[in-house]
Amino acid sequence: MNIVESLRALVDETAVLDATTLATRSAGAHRADTLTAQAMVRPSTTEEVSTVLAWCHAQGIGVVTQGGLTGLVHGADASTAEVILSLESMRRIEDIDVRQRTATVQAGVVLQALQEAVDAHDLIFPLDLGARGSATLGGNAATNAGGNRVIRYGMMRDMVLGLEAVLADGTVVSSMNRLIKNNTGYDLKQLFIGSEGTLGVITRLVLRLREKPQSHQAALVAVESFDAVANLLKHMDRSLGGALSAFEVMWQSFYQLVSTPPAKGQPPIDAGFPYYVLVESLGADREADSQRFNAALETALEHGLIADAAIAHSDADVQAFWALRDDVMQVTVGGAPVVFDVSLPIVEMEAFVARLRAALPQEIGEHRLWVFGHLGDGNLHVIVQVPAPDYLALRPRIEALVYEGLRAFSGSVSAEHGIGLEKKPWLPISRNPNEIALMRTLKQALDPKHILNQGKIF
Amino acid sequence: MNIVESLRALVDETAVLDATTLATRSAGAHRADTLTAQAMVRPSTTEEVSTVLAWCHAQGIGVVTQGGLTGLVHGADASTAEVILSLESMRRIEDIDVRQRTATVQAGVVLQALQEAVDAHDLIFPLDLGARGSATLGGNAATNAGGNRVIRYGMMRDMVLGLEAVLADGTVVSSMNRLIKNNTGYDLKQLFIGSEGTLGVITRLVLRLREKPQSHQAALVAVESFDAVANLLKHMDRSLGGALSAFEVMWQSFYQLVSTPPAKGQPPIDAGFPYYVLVESLGADREADSQRFNAALETALEHGLIADAAIAHSDADVQAFWALRDDVMQVTVGGAPVVFDVSLPIVEMEAFVARLRAALPQEIGEHRLWVFGHLGDGNLHVIVQVPAPDYLALRPRIEALVYEGLRAFSGSVSAEHGIGLEKKPWLPISRNPNEIALMRTLKQALDPKHILNQGKIF
Repeated sequence: MNIVESLRALVDETAVLDATTLATRSAGAHRADTLTAQAMVRPSTTEEVSTVLAWCHAQGIGVVTQGGLTGLVHGADASTAEVILSLESMRRIEDIDVRQRTATVQAGVVLQALQEAVDAHDLIFPLDLGARGSATLGGNAATNAGGNRVIRYGMMRDMVLGLEAVLADGTVVSSMNRLIKNNTGYDLKQLFIGSEGTLGVITRLVLRLREKPQSHQAALVAVESFDAVANLLKHMDRSLGGALSAFEVMWQSFYQLVSTPPAKGQPPIDAGFPYYVLVESLGADREADSQRFNAALETALEHGLIADAAIAHSDADVQAFWALRDDVMQVTVGGAPVVFDVSLPIVEMEAFVARLRAALPQEIGEHRLWVFGHLGDGNLHVIVQVPAPDYLALRPRIEALVYEGLRAFSGSVSAEHGIGLEKKPWLPISRNPNEIALMRTLKQALDPKHILNQGKIF
Repeated sequence: MNIVESLRALVDETAVLDATTLATRSAGAHRADTLTAQAMVRPSTTEEVSTVLAWCHAQGIGVVTQGGLTGLVHGADASTAEVILSLESMRRIEDIDVRQRTATVQAGVVLQALQEAVDAHDLIFPLDLGARGSATLGGNAATNAGGNRVIRYGMMRDMVLGLEAVLADGTVVSSMNRLIKNNTGYDLKQLFIGSEGTLGVITRLVLRLREKPQSHQAALVAVESFDAVANLLKHMDRSLGGALSAFEVMWQSFYQLVSTPPAKGQPPIDAGFPYYVLVESLGADREADSQRFNAALETALEHGLIADAAIAHSDADVQAFWALRDDVMQVTVGGAPVVFDVSLPIVEMEAFVARLRAALPQEIGEHRLWVFGHLGDGNLHVIVQVPAPDYLALRPRIEALVYEGLRAFSGSVSAEHGIGLEKKPWLPISRNPNEIALMRTLKQALDPKHILNQGKIF
């Protein structure tokens, strides 16, 4: 049986690529390898997705769904025995309802395309992350993407009102709810959000939009202790009354990294403090919100929560602050980084980092350690850089140190990136055997032939 | 086999009540009947819940879980063949973490008890509803409760970080996540939230707390058209920059009902307008927030979005406005009410109500129609009152009119109350056959012997 020919008989001929063509396509952002698979099929409708899945299911062929290929955990890797189902031909924004504040999209729509489309209506789709220019909304949903504004607007899960998914056997489950409140039986969309393509293929989404904020405040502040960082979060959250949109903490070494050459960033405040926080709020009124924001910072200064502060006076300032926080590529200078995306209770963070800092020298020798993250939602990015020649040998030991270190603090081995293949060995640190058994029960119920994204997660 | 004796051998003897004792207990709020069942067992730990379920599972005995018995859809009714599992002995607030802003509770804790416990720490648990004094947090989770502040804080689903549930066979799935971001495999808690006790028994919860708002603004406004109501929602939401907490609309006849004797409420503004809206915001600073709130109302007045407004100048005013909105018992004066809890897109509401208003006289004759609801989240309460003697005969016809009327607008037959037994016949109006089939697949996978809350939902 020739899979490429068979698929071409099911959908438009040009919608199917063979293995040779795939070998010319990149396997994803930040990756050096190219795609492998028996074939790629690019349906343009839900019906075509259904037809393809029904056929693959009958044949027992594994299917890997791909969106924008911006994932970081090898969650969309395919083997040479599998078929890739790419959503790249399903990029239609079907509807933007300004009054109901919903958008209806095909799953292949790129995040930024939706952001731009709704901006014209004075609305926002609040999910935002670095890969906005290539990540798809279907991929955002399948991985429950997080990003920069989770403390204000939640994760992708909180922005999906309805969805349509195709099950492994081709059954279309259309649950395109547009309502904020709908308690009519099980909330089926939750099954597909965050399950990394293992339970079904998301084909369409109804997304919740929000009114566009009319003002934007930001400050970069220096903090003397982690206790003060935690109290500052509570203080700012309370003082801003619902407008706090980001609370990004940088440990000293990360701040120094991104504000010292070869990094292009300039330090807005002295680089000698132990912690820095980028605080941001999104509001309704530029003047009144600035007053409130500055007053909250002044109170924090009076109470000793912050030691120094640089307040953004222009959009350029805001961008400059974010550019520091986002200049993560500096961690690749002078060595090879092992990058982590963990979460743990705020009260435990300092102890977790201290233990890691103490253990690293004896366990792995020469290294650099950087920590930063979305503290407002418990999410830390930990980066350990080692000399490039030692990377492959040291990586497993570093992973063991970081992940085993989380165990004592009930931490999560993946705050937002997901499990994919990369973190699969570490899943049992965050989930117990009965939880994993229940995940397997769900997988068995929805995909009994295990054709969808084989071997991912567990 | 004597079930009562068998259960008494499994748990503390006093934790098991027999059928005779149950017949002296009310079946729930607003109900005239008493409890029926073979027995009621009241475990005090998760382990006891597990032991009881494992035994019932082995015997093939149906189990109905009960919380505070405040449900409105007969979702916790038991038959004489079933065992009631009551969470009333699991009322321990295990932990309040002020910095992480989480509460860990047993499922039988009453909503108001948690509200009061966290208030002492200057935090809130933002779920709020009329039955707060008896509804349990486990019941709130099992039914995905909504309430008065959904536009600001979401439904119960959005407030649960982790949970522990016992499956039908007694397996304990403890997924007590305390983290806002945790993408480690399937989000299992979603299965149990809103599934009305049909997939497992929720025994413990980790709940997300919020900083306590420092100020409170409210106004009752009159609006000339439904178009203006919808635009007012957008205007207030945008102008208040995240602080809008309620947007409760009353159609004229409901406003007149609750502000005219025998109702005790006084009308703060003239009762001749077609629509009234109770707008509320929760903020951080009394003076600044009041200024902003009043300015937003002034702009609305200038733009013709509102025709008149009464602004609350004290907490007593706020309470008086809410007392009008909450005086739903007036609908029982002079007749018998059929009460609905539906949701539909805001753009469709006016047409839906107009069609219903036109159809009622010819279909059912003498009646009164009242409409009000949480417009901010699409949720309408529709109440049709008929002469008491005609109630039983007319009720099915009224249900058919309201629910069939929703079909054309992709509405939901249950915005927040759930399906239970009462709305089971109408589920297919809001959910398609493939959705219901997938619900059955999940039920079969998690409870293959169908012992949990038999016959509810579908």
